[in-house]
Amino acid sequence: MHFQYPSRLLEEAVQEFAALPGIGQKTALRLVLHLLRQDRSVIAGFGNTLIKLSNELKFCRICMNICDNELCPVCSDKKRDPSIICVVENVKDIMIIENTQQYRGVYHVLGGIISPMDGLGPSDLHISELENRVKEGKIREIIFALSATMEGDTTNFYLHRRLNNNELIFSTLARGVSIGDELEYTDEVTLGRSIVNRIPFTAS
Amino acid sequence: MHFQYPSRLLEEAVQEFAALPGIGQKTALRLVLHLLRQDRSVIAGFGNTLIKLSNELKFCRICMNICDNELCPVCSDKKRDPSIICVVENVKDIMIIENTQQYRGVYHVLGGIISPMDGLGPSDLHISELENRVKEGKIREIIFALSATMEGDTTNFYLHRRLNNNELIFSTLARGVSIGDELEYTDEVTLGRSIVNRIPFTAS
Repeated sequence: MHFQYPSRLLEEAVQEFAALPGIGQKTALRLVLHLLRQDRSVIAGFGNTLIKLSNELKFCRICMNICDNELCPVCSDKKRDPSIICVVENVKDIMIIENTQQYRGVYHVLGGIISPMDGLGPSDLHISELENRVKEGKIREIIFALSATMEGDTTNFYLHRRLNNNELIFSTLARGVSIGDELEYTDEVTLGRSIVNRIPFTAS
Repeated sequence: MHFQYPSRLLEEAVQEFAALPGIGQKTALRLVLHLLRQDRSVIAGFGNTLIKLSNELKFCRICMNICDNELCPVCSDKKRDPSIICVVENVKDIMIIENTQQYRGVYHVLGGIISPMDGLGPSDLHISELENRVKEGKIREIIFALSATMEGDTTNFYLHRRLNNNELIFSTLARGVSIGDELEYTDEVTLGRSIVNRIPFTAS
């Protein structure tokens, strides 16, 4: 359904929300009208939060996690073991794994997985940053915690071939994670067990 | 699921989205991470749009529709008949009725309907503004286009009792609108026919 908007400002705000994934024109309009029923300061606060996010948000210079400072909370935590790197697709996966409280190593955010269908190749991911971390020689183990899909497997193989130096141990999450499932829909207990019972990575 | 956020800025942005109706913590996080995959200027643009909305959006001084200037596009349109007022709950209902291209009168936005369950009484709605428009003596007809629910009917009865002056014609949308349905889920053809075939309002 095409809408005639009574106001350009209203339409612009609706378009911003409608550009988000899973939010259509009608839902976007509902959200904006909901905001307009609040105090004006609520809308301005929302806007200012986004501007602050845009201006101030940083990415950890070691693992590419989102953070407020130079280093993310994991990389700056002296109690974490910096010789084990868990490779994840995105920041949300770190949050999900941290939530299991079963992992004491550090992370590396790839920013996606190799997916020719989506036009994502190795050069679009933070792979050279991971390579540099390995080259420093202090890493003992790489854990692949990517989605258990074909794209995830492809990325595991690619990373293994590129990083393998006969000293590193490679492992993946135990296959408690159902094949074909996205990481974020895995239940907490299964995910926690999977990272404890991780298994050697075999590139055969 | 409770999340440990790696960044306060990220958490604040997620909370803003999660405060919107129908958007939970997980969806909000997904939306913010989607924004963070865009160029920073996209996020800042989103923020600026909301701040502009908060600062500049006006309400039409005649009908309370949303607008960019003093008057809304309908009230400032000389071709519309200002002696017929269609009373609606909210701005979205105007957009839906305008979309049928079947109505040439003007509107009045109540800002809700009488609903004791939601703590909404007559004093919370723009009823005195409607009363003032009627008192100017140029209105011939009032069309009730509220939801076909008990609360809508209650509001119709209340408005009829308060505005009735033996000169006004009162009508409601033809009952092509299914009883118990919200206005916004009515199909376009039915809604267009309903406003053409509107029927006399009887407060019995």
